[in-house]
Amino acid sequence: MTRNTALKESFTLPEQLTGRSIVLVGLMGAGKTSIGRRLAARLGMPFRDADTEIELAAGCTVPELFERFGEKEFRDGERRVIRRLLAGEPLVLATGGGAYMDPETRASIRREGVCIWLRASLPTLLRRVAGRVHRPLLNSGEPADVLQRLMQARHPVYAEADLIVDCGDESPDTTTGHVLDALTAWQPSRRLSLSLSGGSYDVVVGENLLARAGALLAPVLPQKRAVVVTDDHVGPLHLQTLLAGLAQTAIAAQHITVPAGETSKNLDTYARVVDGLLDAGVERRTAVIALGGGVVGDLAGFAAATTLRGLPFVQVPTTLLAQVDSSVGGKTGINTRHGKNLLGAFHQPRMVLADTAALATLPMRELGAGYAEIAKAGLIGDAAFFEWCEANGAAVIGGERDAQAEAVLRACAFKAQVVGNDEREEKPNDGRALLNLGHTFGHALEAELGYGTILHGEAVATGIGLAFKLSAALGLCAQADADRVVAHMAAMGLPAELPMLNRRFSAARLIGHMQRDKKMRDGKLTFVLARGIGRAFTRNDVPPEAVTALLRAEGCAA
Amino acid sequence: MTRNTALKESFTLPEQLTGRSIVLVGLMGAGKTSIGRRLAARLGMPFRDADTEIELAAGCTVPELFERFGEKEFRDGERRVIRRLLAGEPLVLATGGGAYMDPETRASIRREGVCIWLRASLPTLLRRVAGRVHRPLLNSGEPADVLQRLMQARHPVYAEADLIVDCGDESPDTTTGHVLDALTAWQPSRRLSLSLSGGSYDVVVGENLLARAGALLAPVLPQKRAVVVTDDHVGPLHLQTLLAGLAQTAIAAQHITVPAGETSKNLDTYARVVDGLLDAGVERRTAVIALGGGVVGDLAGFAAATTLRGLPFVQVPTTLLAQVDSSVGGKTGINTRHGKNLLGAFHQPRMVLADTAALATLPMRELGAGYAEIAKAGLIGDAAFFEWCEANGAAVIGGERDAQAEAVLRACAFKAQVVGNDEREEKPNDGRALLNLGHTFGHALEAELGYGTILHGEAVATGIGLAFKLSAALGLCAQADADRVVAHMAAMGLPAELPMLNRRFSAARLIGHMQRDKKMRDGKLTFVLARGIGRAFTRNDVPPEAVTALLRAEGCAA
Repeated sequence: MTRNTALKESFTLPEQLTGRSIVLVGLMGAGKTSIGRRLAARLGMPFRDADTEIELAAGCTVPELFERFGEKEFRDGERRVIRRLLAGEPLVLATGGGAYMDPETRASIRREGVCIWLRASLPTLLRRVAGRVHRPLLNSGEPADVLQRLMQARHPVYAEADLIVDCGDESPDTTTGHVLDALTAWQPSRRLSLSLSGGSYDVVVGENLLARAGALLAPVLPQKRAVVVTDDHVGPLHLQTLLAGLAQTAIAAQHITVPAGETSKNLDTYARVVDGLLDAGVERRTAVIALGGGVVGDLAGFAAATTLRGLPFVQVPTTLLAQVDSSVGGKTGINTRHGKNLLGAFHQPRMVLADTAALATLPMRELGAGYAEIAKAGLIGDAAFFEWCEANGAAVIGGERDAQAEAVLRACAFKAQVVGNDEREEKPNDGRALLNLGHTFGHALEAELGYGTILHGEAVATGIGLAFKLSAALGLCAQADADRVVAHMAAMGLPAELPMLNRRFSAARLIGHMQRDKKMRDGKLTFVLARGIGRAFTRNDVPPEAVTALLRAEGCAA
Repeated sequence: MTRNTALKESFTLPEQLTGRSIVLVGLMGAGKTSIGRRLAARLGMPFRDADTEIELAAGCTVPELFERFGEKEFRDGERRVIRRLLAGEPLVLATGGGAYMDPETRASIRREGVCIWLRASLPTLLRRVAGRVHRPLLNSGEPADVLQRLMQARHPVYAEADLIVDCGDESPDTTTGHVLDALTAWQPSRRLSLSLSGGSYDVVVGENLLARAGALLAPVLPQKRAVVVTDDHVGPLHLQTLLAGLAQTAIAAQHITVPAGETSKNLDTYARVVDGLLDAGVERRTAVIALGGGVVGDLAGFAAATTLRGLPFVQVPTTLLAQVDSSVGGKTGINTRHGKNLLGAFHQPRMVLADTAALATLPMRELGAGYAEIAKAGLIGDAAFFEWCEANGAAVIGGERDAQAEAVLRACAFKAQVVGNDEREEKPNDGRALLNLGHTFGHALEAELGYGTILHGEAVATGIGLAFKLSAALGLCAQADADRVVAHMAAMGLPAELPMLNRRFSAARLIGHMQRDKKMRDGKLTFVLARGIGRAFTRNDVPPEAVTALLRAEGCAA
């Protein structure tokens, strides 16, 4: 299965690896030094062996260091040496078998390099270490027992490496070829680092993150223990992948499954989730992982925020809408008979894993509804991103993973900027309120059609179209801008005009819904309007006649 | 009813007023200038009339200023002049009728002075202003109508004054005498200002604060609207007083009553409270006020923390235990079948009003139980405060208001210091964990006797006695210290030794309870022990044999 990379010619690393060191980890005997030398030669990079560097710095051998100062002193030195090596020019670095067990060393390696675990079976390792006497940890018992114990302790940590290459009895050149293949195929996930007053966290976007969940989450979970909350639609599709991913780094996970759908966002289901968490014996450091769409994220997030007064929380959104909408902002909550999201808490996650592979299981209509929220970001405040949407929207909805990742990341980055400016939703205007573009009309349509008939994202798409038309009618933006918005939504298969909904509406009834919306103050109509693409603002004094006129022009009855 | 203060001799202000200015507020015609001059003469303080100072600064009359620049400009100037006058030496200051309506001016006056509202009826005012032409606000209509409107708008704000003196048709000298009487009788409430990451707030301790709740809370509530949550024991005693107090500054308040007792701290009652809040139509700025003991505070606090993702919250604790225990720290929560306080949130109040008058309705046994938590503060980390307790504990339990206020304030201050150091209870040792002094034994006793048989504070008192005896047995502190602790608790009528509980316990059963406590880790016994009075520390490796030996010495069976 190796490609031309098995040949001994020089090799150029793909772009995403430029400037990064390559760090080999694995147990003694895995071949880190011999593979490392060959890799370095093929790549034209310098090679260093951390143990050799330590011996040079200390003026004695590793076994002597162990004997003279003990393991702790040795690890301290090892940590410093590796940090120094990684701080310089990119290189290929072979580390001692225990180096990667140190959390600080792992953090340095994550920051500066790409980490490859050379994984070998016990018999392979035993054959290779036979007769070596300078391995301090091997001298404390039967080599097979010692290696077995080391494997149990270290494999879950080595699994945090970026890449895993299995090594058997093939030649070092062949293994080197495998490593180069793996490096070539590697697509690093993209990260958006958010810093909010409730804490900092990364939104990681990429393909097959569920299978890598353990490696991605291990650095941010305070305990190798979690409870996954999912629903009965998403669970059968993705739960086993996630649990297997967590198991790779020995994160023990139980799970709780709730019925799919908005009706699960209620106090009874919340009580069931909380009960499940307490039954599972969660401690203050046990994480809650929400696996699913917005409903699961909101519900599990609220349970995490309140159980034991706050458990660490991770979002693994599996719908496009949730990846964009609930990844940023820390809002969690449930509905009551009085309305949506009336009970809840702000609770920032430790990490968000937005796996684009999970989007493959979404119905096209759901993808479109999520897409409306992405385009919304550009329309509110990032004209360049809306242009990108016009060029790439079809690819996003069509399932192209790169386009999806880019779209999610840019929409999240935009939202993070808005949220960072108004974390607890305290500004009446122009803070988070801007994110309600399309929502005044949208909520009225949802209320009129009954929730569930029209998807939230579809109602928002229509609402955005109407908001731009209203802005044009009020002389605030050019008619051409409104036309451009409607055209793009329509091209994406989204309803951007009332006639596209194939229903006869009453203007008076729609305005009635708007006046009952909880965001209204004193019965005044509040809208997010725009002075152009990417130039939205809030306005709470729109004359009802202007809204009526627009709705009539859209074919509504009086 | 005036005392000798009506005579024209000079008068010395009581100590609590030293260094403070006296500021007179009220409508036009209330007599601020004439009373102010007389007050100043009697007190030997300078007198200033804010309007005159403004005219001096502006070089024209107040009516001219109004006409030339409008009211807003005038108020800006007025605010600056008053701030400047209050920044200097203490004086008697008469303000214009509108000055106190400005929130910044009110804040300056609160900071620097004591504020007296000269309250007069409409007929009195009308008589006094008849024929005056230099009152700009009076020229806009019939004086009676204008004054009526002004009264409606301003009285709720004037009510924020520290003192209210009613003025009728008596002579200015008589009214001046009334003002001096009021100043003499005035007991300013004491304040502890806390600054935590979740926000800053004051714990106000004093007598009859419920009746003054409107004046005290108006500066910190974002909206003149609140919902009071209370229980069916406390409500009949104190609700009307609180509502009347709120009404004085026009804070509109609805109320929700839950059954008294620990069983109300459950999810069903929480749902009822939340439902009640939403039925009341709370908005994000509507405050929730908890009126009652710890149960009401915890329950209402959790509802406030989660309704609309967080409403402003006020604690009005009516038990000694709650005044000390739940005023500081921001913990809210309810119980589940798995245990106590397992669902909750950290939610800091905007203000805590600890009314010592409310303690008069407490049974003596409840006072004692609360007192145990006060003495605990001294024993953990403030030896001088424990000495104070030894000298004043009887007064606290005996109902002396000053001693109670001092005790509450010092215990809260101590707790604030511990909490500020470990806000989210993340330190395993020596942070908030220290506040658990007496709780390992105490919880075991509560579990063994059944919750409710022994009051929590009583169990803690016994636990503290045992913790000091254990410390002495382990050679950590002097036996004399343990004896002193036990003697003080006993003197306060609290059980500080097992024999005082008149029950035969089994050491093995008590230790079993301790090992099931949720604060235990890996079955090890964690205790807060002490090296002496005020020198507590946590220890998680106490040999069970030492505990058994102590319990046997206290008369337990094996």
